[in-house]
Amino acid sequence: MGNMLGIQLDKAGEMPLRRQIYQAMRDRMLSGLLKAGEPLPSTRELSADLQVARSTVCEAYEMLIAEGFAVSSQGAPTRVAEGLSLETVPGCPARRTTESRQSCKADFRTGSPDLRHFPRYLWQQTLNRALDEIKVEKYGYTGAQGLPELRYEIAAWLFRSRGLIVDAEDIFITQGATHALHLAADLICRDRPKILMEDPCHTGMLRTLMNKECKVVPVPVDEHGIRTEMPDADAGAVYVTPSHQFPLGGILPASRRAALIRYARDHDAYLIEDDYDSEFRYCGEPVTPLHALDPRRVIYVGTFSKSVYPALRIGYVILPQTLHKQWIRLRTHTDVQNPVIEQAALAVFLRTRKLDRHIKKMRRIYGERRRALLAELERTFGGGWRAYGDDAGLHLAVEFPNLCFDDAFRKSAAERGILITPVEYHCIDKGRHRDKLLIGYGHLDPDEIRSGIGLLYEHVRDYFRQEKKGL
Amino acid sequence: MGNMLGIQLDKAGEMPLRRQIYQAMRDRMLSGLLKAGEPLPSTRELSADLQVARSTVCEAYEMLIAEGFAVSSQGAPTRVAEGLSLETVPGCPARRTTESRQSCKADFRTGSPDLRHFPRYLWQQTLNRALDEIKVEKYGYTGAQGLPELRYEIAAWLFRSRGLIVDAEDIFITQGATHALHLAADLICRDRPKILMEDPCHTGMLRTLMNKECKVVPVPVDEHGIRTEMPDADAGAVYVTPSHQFPLGGILPASRRAALIRYARDHDAYLIEDDYDSEFRYCGEPVTPLHALDPRRVIYVGTFSKSVYPALRIGYVILPQTLHKQWIRLRTHTDVQNPVIEQAALAVFLRTRKLDRHIKKMRRIYGERRRALLAELERTFGGGWRAYGDDAGLHLAVEFPNLCFDDAFRKSAAERGILITPVEYHCIDKGRHRDKLLIGYGHLDPDEIRSGIGLLYEHVRDYFRQEKKGL
Repeated sequence: MGNMLGIQLDKAGEMPLRRQIYQAMRDRMLSGLLKAGEPLPSTRELSADLQVARSTVCEAYEMLIAEGFAVSSQGAPTRVAEGLSLETVPGCPARRTTESRQSCKADFRTGSPDLRHFPRYLWQQTLNRALDEIKVEKYGYTGAQGLPELRYEIAAWLFRSRGLIVDAEDIFITQGATHALHLAADLICRDRPKILMEDPCHTGMLRTLMNKECKVVPVPVDEHGIRTEMPDADAGAVYVTPSHQFPLGGILPASRRAALIRYARDHDAYLIEDDYDSEFRYCGEPVTPLHALDPRRVIYVGTFSKSVYPALRIGYVILPQTLHKQWIRLRTHTDVQNPVIEQAALAVFLRTRKLDRHIKKMRRIYGERRRALLAELERTFGGGWRAYGDDAGLHLAVEFPNLCFDDAFRKSAAERGILITPVEYHCIDKGRHRDKLLIGYGHLDPDEIRSGIGLLYEHVRDYFRQEKKGL
Repeated sequence: MGNMLGIQLDKAGEMPLRRQIYQAMRDRMLSGLLKAGEPLPSTRELSADLQVARSTVCEAYEMLIAEGFAVSSQGAPTRVAEGLSLETVPGCPARRTTESRQSCKADFRTGSPDLRHFPRYLWQQTLNRALDEIKVEKYGYTGAQGLPELRYEIAAWLFRSRGLIVDAEDIFITQGATHALHLAADLICRDRPKILMEDPCHTGMLRTLMNKECKVVPVPVDEHGIRTEMPDADAGAVYVTPSHQFPLGGILPASRRAALIRYARDHDAYLIEDDYDSEFRYCGEPVTPLHALDPRRVIYVGTFSKSVYPALRIGYVILPQTLHKQWIRLRTHTDVQNPVIEQAALAVFLRTRKLDRHIKKMRRIYGERRRALLAELERTFGGGWRAYGDDAGLHLAVEFPNLCFDDAFRKSAAERGILITPVEYHCIDKGRHRDKLLIGYGHLDPDEIRSGIGLLYEHVRDYFRQEKKGL
């Protein structure tokens, strides 16, 4: 009799035969090949035709009936249901191929810790220890605020590393700093959409706020950090990076810190303090956060992306009590909570002081790299540059008076395999920092830094020589 | 001489002495006890006074100078900086104590898989295998779309379990279904804020949309699922649970599926298909998703919260190509990406078919529990009830004609230790499903189900007897 419906079965395939039959029939009903009310072949006929067990066809028919593609009534043959016909779906356009990239010879991008020094076996041990300790209930919904043991350990660590006295009840775990800002903006900007923001600032953070339809009002930054002659705007919050301004690198002086607190009090506003990398300061200890000056006015944002690793996705906020309930409600309906395993492991990592040791080691390594970078800039560029900001972090802002770094420069560098960002890229009001480049060095060893700066020097020389010719 | 500034050091404490001195000085400057321009005691004096090494005081002074609390100039004593004074922070109000809860005797809440049957040692092995395999670069930023190996394994699993043919390039990992809906709403509702939504629906999902300021237009549901006489509204999307309607339990018939696709095509709208628990169907196989009918019109939302465990926080969406770029941009500025470890482990769990085996086992267990629940309802309530919807999932909607379950009923049950939700709780338009209760049974063993139904029976009897008296 031949294959009565043109069904081709893949008998060696991974999909069960009953499902292959079901799908073939379903497709024929949707396309109109099998029409409403039309009787289906009997299970006996079709099983003989397809050379499969009759029970397999019965199962396929049961699926069709259960999902309403077919109807059966006692004694009568199974028929195609009404109302199924759809025009067939047009084919999808061909996939775009991924672009080929120029191989990277010098990667000065910012925000990358050195993963080669991450103690992954120690971390694996820590994870296993956490998995041994964790109660099975913790695999269920464990709350939007985050695991209590992790919040407790973060509070203890903030005390011993920064002298910050925080109650674990005021700490809320997030999926990193971006996520924290996303949620904070939702809380604050709904009623008061204006937000004051350091300019320049991290362009990713800026976009997070713009996505929330916040109205961003820029406030200029100098080499010490945000300037506190605040513009006249009814802002619900001020976004600042006082411990290490991104990208210019200043550590905000105490008088400006006090001015920020006064501003927040006078204008009933919050200060969003993004403390993204203050663990890595090379002279002295981490700076005491703004939070210590007035916990009622500061939303402190911390992250373990730099000190542990980026794909950990754990950060936290310290919230004023006025925001606790709203935060929990918002988080519950945004992404519910953080995964449990990393939270439990990080708590063990903190409890056993392994994070303290790792940070101490990395501070030494990053400090060496910074010195290697400064020495190499001195050696190649001579006196025509100046390091901006303070002695901290995983990147350096460098000023080259009289030069102008724009997007054309960035692109031409990328074409030569040098990935580097002009400060201008992170500016809201353009034009004030054209003479500065950002050099991310945390993820580069001293040899990579030296060869990279050599390439950068050659490119800067060639690019600006060519530019002068063009004039 | 006595303690010259009233500084108390905790010499046995965990905070370094230099930091204790620094903080004590800082607090005195902020409070105005040490005034702008006032000279600080010399390091020699203060170290003698506090009985600590002079180098310790020097370090504290360096911190104060670095942060701008103090200024020093060659030859002159170190002085308090200008502009520091702040009124002291008022004390925080006393903490609220956590409410004591009535001990729970029967927990019929929905949405909880049975964690006692989760193979945690197998999962730990799987995690270790993933950690052994994972390259160190994966601890860095690995992309907003999710790990390619996980997306590949999900595509393969969707094919073998549901017959869905999906390209891994169309799969985007999320932090669960709520997170997926949060992002989808941001994408769609910005331009077209109206969204059609099944009514009743999961109230958590409803709140997620309301938080996004979407305008929700309810569409009634009957025992087969959403009714497809759609209201006249310029909606950008329709939210549906066609595989197993939450909470009423219907499996949407094929003709209504086709009607939804036609609606989406005619109105240039997307269908958000939330497939939250279709793994657990007790007669036949999982239903083929709407997505198979027209991948260009459907945003398919899947989650591993029920099939693996809730605190895993991994879900996914299958997106039409038109939304890929916007999704990546949005996710990057929302919470960047999922953590890497669970993604890698879930990929191994899928690749080694351990998820398939776990689901098969749990389907058997949940099926038994469902039968135990139905038998016990029959035994206690006799004929005065009827199971609503189809034979699937981890909960059952039960209709008790002539009874009316409202929030007062829910509260009175909770007072007797019975946690149970009336369907009314999940209704947008109130009043149409007052005669129905939701009984979550997935996390209860047959004995717990039997004793719980016994308690529920007694409570229903007492509650409505009392109510009649009151009339």
